[in-house]
Amino acid sequence: MNSIATGYDTISHDLDDGVLTVLLDRPENLNAFTVAMAEELESTFRDVNTNDDVRAVIVTGAGRAFCAGMDLDVPGNVFGLDEDKNPTLADMSDLDHPDIARVRDTGGRVTLAIHDCRKPVLAAINGPAVGIGATMTLAMDRRIMSDTARMGLVFGRIGIVPEAASSWFLSRIVGPSAALDLTYRADILDASAAHAVGLVDETTDATALLTRAREVVDAWTKERSQVATALLRQMVRRNAVLPHPADAHRVDSLAMFFTSIGDGKEGVAAFLDKRAAAFAGRASELPAFYDEWIHESGT
Amino acid sequence: MNSIATGYDTISHDLDDGVLTVLLDRPENLNAFTVAMAEELESTFRDVNTNDDVRAVIVTGAGRAFCAGMDLDVPGNVFGLDEDKNPTLADMSDLDHPDIARVRDTGGRVTLAIHDCRKPVLAAINGPAVGIGATMTLAMDRRIMSDTARMGLVFGRIGIVPEAASSWFLSRIVGPSAALDLTYRADILDASAAHAVGLVDETTDATALLTRAREVVDAWTKERSQVATALLRQMVRRNAVLPHPADAHRVDSLAMFFTSIGDGKEGVAAFLDKRAAAFAGRASELPAFYDEWIHESGT
Amino acid sequence: MNSIATGYDTISHDLDDGVLTVLLDRPENLNAFTVAMAEELESTFRDVNTNDDVRAVIVTGAGRAFCAGMDLDVPGNVFGLDEDKNPTLADMSDLDHPDIARVRDTGGRVTLAIHDCRKPVLAAINGPAVGIGATMTLAMDRRIMSDTARMGLVFGRIGIVPEAASSWFLSRIVGPSAALDLTYRADILDASAAHAVGLVDETTDATALLTRAREVVDAWTKERSQVATALLRQMVRRNAVLPHPADAHRVDSLAMFFTSIGDGKEGVAAFLDKRAAAFAGRASELPAFYDEWIHESGT
Repeated sequence: MNSIATGYDTISHDLDDGVLTVLLDRPENLNAFTVAMAEELESTFRDVNTNDDVRAVIVTGAGRAFCAGMDLDVPGNVFGLDEDKNPTLADMSDLDHPDIARVRDTGGRVTLAIHDCRKPVLAAINGPAVGIGATMTLAMDRRIMSDTARMGLVFGRIGIVPEAASSWFLSRIVGPSAALDLTYRADILDASAAHAVGLVDETTDATALLTRAREVVDAWTKERSQVATALLRQMVRRNAVLPHPADAHRVDSLAMFFTSIGDGKEGVAAFLDKRAAAFAGRASELPAFYDEWIHESGT
Repeated sequence: MNSIATGYDTISHDLDDGVLTVLLDRPENLNAFTVAMAEELESTFRDVNTNDDVRAVIVTGAGRAFCAGMDLDVPGNVFGLDEDKNPTLADMSDLDHPDIARVRDTGGRVTLAIHDCRKPVLAAINGPAVGIGATMTLAMDRRIMSDTARMGLVFGRIGIVPEAASSWFLSRIVGPSAALDLTYRADILDASAAHAVGLVDETTDATALLTRAREVVDAWTKERSQVATALLRQMVRRNAVLPHPADAHRVDSLAMFFTSIGDGKEGVAAFLDKRAAAFAGRASELPAFYDEWIHESGT
Repeated sequence: MNSIATGYDTISHDLDDGVLTVLLDRPENLNAFTVAMAEELESTFRDVNTNDDVRAVIVTGAGRAFCAGMDLDVPGNVFGLDEDKNPTLADMSDLDHPDIARVRDTGGRVTLAIHDCRKPVLAAINGPAVGIGATMTLAMDRRIMSDTARMGLVFGRIGIVPEAASSWFLSRIVGPSAALDLTYRADILDASAAHAVGLVDETTDATALLTRAREVVDAWTKERSQVATALLRQMVRRNAVLPHPADAHRVDSLAMFFTSIGDGKEGVAAFLDKRAAAFAGRASELPAFYDEWIHESGT
């Protein structure tokens, strides 16, 4: 795993047969989120894009929690700014003020990196997932949850708002009525309630969680083209909110064309020969239109 | 309730411990919608934004109906124009024609005011909700319905189209397939059918409707920051359709920062002290970025 | 049916009392998709817009399949280009390269024509619907499926990506988590699984499929204004992704105004007289704002 395997303080990595398990690893603090954890997660998801040894990512927590939210004991965690460099309430009258312009919540930096990732990302929620511990999973492709875990968008209880670009992800996942109900109420839900409202896609016995997570990412990425998967992931994420399907058609056409003269040739040949395909494409090497498209749509 | 409590002909107000109940109040006409009702509703929802005594709004109907739709007996109801000032079919060849440019359906003026509201809004559908009586509720945060009530997007039966910006709200609530099926069919649904398709979020015994409505808005807004709630409401409503989560991240960051140096300080302190928070923020005083953001996104 | 009734090689038409049934008609090849079929389908859906004898369209397959996907035996099917005129991988570094700019997948040409159609379109999935056989149905208004049929977004199995603008349609129909799960897995689903995930709206006994399809389109379009239906269809399809409901309000207002001084006059009169309405509007003659609006939003 080279550069992304070592040197982290708040998370740890395990790479097994192409599946990178990212462990939120501050068990003594219920894996509470810090600026250091944000930076290490963002760096992980950016590095994964250029590491062709990784075909999928599972995120889970060490010990009994998934992530208990922002660590309130560590100053500056939300924005990663020195206290004395923070903009003031008065500054907020001017959106172009340089101090305002650089205000970026640390949770959002992580979820945008997850959104941009070229590999499928699965949340395996093993225990309490609260605050940023809940919102960070909304940017992942799917959420499976131990039936003893709990999940809460609790921001309203302490007078703040949900973050981590969750206002973009949440109502797309659970619909607009449930999105407001969940965030107004700010309750902590058990696994059954979280599943009923669509906040998680699947619940499982606690002891089976990681086995099931592995089954899912294997079904997603084994015997698949890394290139087709990377293109597909962004097509599904980015195209549905474009103003018109003709905009999606433009990207779809390029992606279909690119794959059909790449891994698709092998795919069709293997299909006709009734053998397993041996795809050679690498997600680290995507066509120029990919960068242009991703850039245009706002990263 | 001062300015918003009196002087209305078609609706009435009741303010109790921060919850404003807006009663559609033409029971002899099944609360049918008129231009006057549109103006009084629009005015109500605009006034609520600057009235810090209101923490939530419940909308329900007087007597046995919620709202039987546009009052077809009163001329000019749809557009509120004098008959002789209406544009003609021929005028519709020119979108920039001043008469065309000012065509605005009265239902849409109400739903946009509901959409922009800084307070949570709950529909308590006590009886028949038909036409604008149905579409006006789609802009509210959640719909609960008496199990004896009925709801119908019946526009197609009289050769017209749904209004009140329902083309924006409906398919986000029930999905695109059901949105077309419901509006093509133009049927009147009983409570069970309306719930099954997602048009309402919850049904309840008729006698329990208002008690349940009160429970919901109390759970949403008691012991909450008015400022965080107002910001949250627009984040969920406006951000999910932005082209990219990075656009939501920008707003989320500012809202999180603003609340974290405002009511969030008290929220965290109260949480650590294990006491109830006493939030001092007022929804009538939101930061400058709020107006800029709301304005940019189109109101 | 004039121009659209004859002269097709890969599909056939049957017009009965205003309902056009389009039969994918290469039963010896399981109705596999070819460039000719794409052109004939696109032409059908464009012609339907100007043919006031058609009030709705049903798409189904001849024989035991709906559509088995792209016909891999016919070269050039995906893009309809001569092999030697195809852009190369190297060309894909330049999005403005004329060869790249004209890359358009044939499936997308069909689904955009379905999206733009002025008449309701129903998929009656009688047998296997795989690849483009599945994605083409996502642009239709509703999918009903024989309980012996199967459906598969199998692109990932051969190293390519989903097409036909399905990246726009799919996650709006099944939600973002299921959209990625379905396309990563690339499984073929039976009717029960397809229904459970929302890929189809309804399943029915195989022998009842076409009868049920007819019931649905009759409920949608009999005793309805062609004009109101055409406007409604695009309002629901186009407005929900606009940045703000005020944008939808503008279109809604014009459409409501146009119908209220057109077929709506007859509709209200018939309603008050308690008789069936006789709508005279024609979908071939829509107001100027329709073309401007459709054009602006990207076709």
